[in-house]
Amino acid sequence: MRPVRIRLTIDYIGTAYAGWQVQPRKITVQGELEAALEKLTGTAVRVTGSGRTDAGVHALGQVAHFDLETDWPVSAFMGGLNRYLPHDIRVLEAELAPAGFHARFSAKRKTYVYRMYRSDVERAVYCGRALRVDPAIDAEAMRVAAQRFLGTQDFSSLCASHADTKSCVRTVYEADVFAEENEIYFRVCADGFLYNMVRIMTGLLLRAGRGEMTPDDVRDVLQACDRTLARDTAPACGLYLLCVNYEN
Amino acid sequence: MRPVRIRLTIDYIGTAYAGWQVQPRKITVQGELEAALEKLTGTAVRVTGSGRTDAGVHALGQVAHFDLETDWPVSAFMGGLNRYLPHDIRVLEAELAPAGFHARFSAKRKTYVYRMYRSDVERAVYCGRALRVDPAIDAEAMRVAAQRFLGTQDFSSLCASHADTKSCVRTVYEADVFAEENEIYFRVCADGFLYNMVRIMTGLLLRAGRGEMTPDDVRDVLQACDRTLARDTAPACGLYLLCVNYEN
Repeated sequence: MRPVRIRLTIDYIGTAYAGWQVQPRKITVQGELEAALEKLTGTAVRVTGSGRTDAGVHALGQVAHFDLETDWPVSAFMGGLNRYLPHDIRVLEAELAPAGFHARFSAKRKTYVYRMYRSDVERAVYCGRALRVDPAIDAEAMRVAAQRFLGTQDFSSLCASHADTKSCVRTVYEADVFAEENEIYFRVCADGFLYNMVRIMTGLLLRAGRGEMTPDDVRDVLQACDRTLARDTAPACGLYLLCVNYEN
Repeated sequence: MRPVRIRLTIDYIGTAYAGWQVQPRKITVQGELEAALEKLTGTAVRVTGSGRTDAGVHALGQVAHFDLETDWPVSAFMGGLNRYLPHDIRVLEAELAPAGFHARFSAKRKTYVYRMYRSDVERAVYCGRALRVDPAIDAEAMRVAAQRFLGTQDFSSLCASHADTKSCVRTVYEADVFAEENEIYFRVCADGFLYNMVRIMTGLLLRAGRGEMTPDDVRDVLQACDRTLARDTAPACGLYLLCVNYEN
């Protein structure tokens, strides 16, 4: 038996879960992973994710790790965990973590996508998976406004007020809006995100797309470092953690 | 009060339902629509769909009608029904049906899409929404094989054996395979479909994509008019009723 650290890449549909983090009497993604690991290995194992996702938020490439004393080949964990996990949580990859790897502290960049669809009415096919927006919304105005998020800035205007964070300075490497057919995507990559930051960014972009804010207004909100100016937090259902990068 | 026939366009995610058709002690899409209509109007109303979909099959544009004596404007039905329907069934449109309209008998063409994704492993994001296929599958071979479905033919080879159908002659207007990023779509439009026909077509295309059948083999299966030759019925989860057309 040797101690190993195993790195997992996971996707999940967050609709049925009270978010990532284990909470008493709540069904969570982390809790389901730990339950599956215990069934598989017979041992209670703590799983550490790259970060939390809120209730209803999805992930296409969440990363997590756990430590275990085992003689099993690492290849046994993907199929083994998937056998015990619900189908809306899947392990896509299980590999030996590189030396010094930590799912949260080693993360260099994260990329989120916020998914919207243009429609006059709610559509079942997007229920819990994307946010309905008015067909007339101006995706180009959203794209231009999103550029104001780029760079190293104090994002305290975009942090949920109850968050307990030392520094609100983050570097946004990519902030782009894509429109294709009836869908609109906001994709944003940064070295880290404040609590609710992507959903508050999306709220600002929606106001820009409705003509209620100019790109300069968005810049002014950021520069004011005042959360009360960015009032709208887009709902969880449209948000996907796309990937976590561990190398620059 | 005047008798009116109202035409509905509906989308639904079929995962939670035992198919379209009302069945004793089962939750079905038709049953949910009839329950919502009864709550809204206080009257038991029969809803007639363009056709059935099986358990787990989805619809982006199912069409249905119902008859009612009412003084309400037709515009009241979309919002009214959506208030009582579960969120995985949505009324997208409610309008007065043209004279002589019947959701099933007036239908001229139906279009289905079968959705697949290339991946070595099952992915949560596609769970219940698309079929996993091997990344190496040959989409171009599928596209060529699909052309053998085109035209007016006896499709008895592609009909589930227990189906009770007089004629198996149908006209297929479109049968195409699209590959984009990691998804593959089979889209097929015909004047009507036999029971399980699209899923059996998809089963043949998957064999073509794996190199187990040539396009000529697909033609031979059709010409043999022998269901036992088309053995694989693709699972329900990938199938979407895209639209129903009432004009040629």
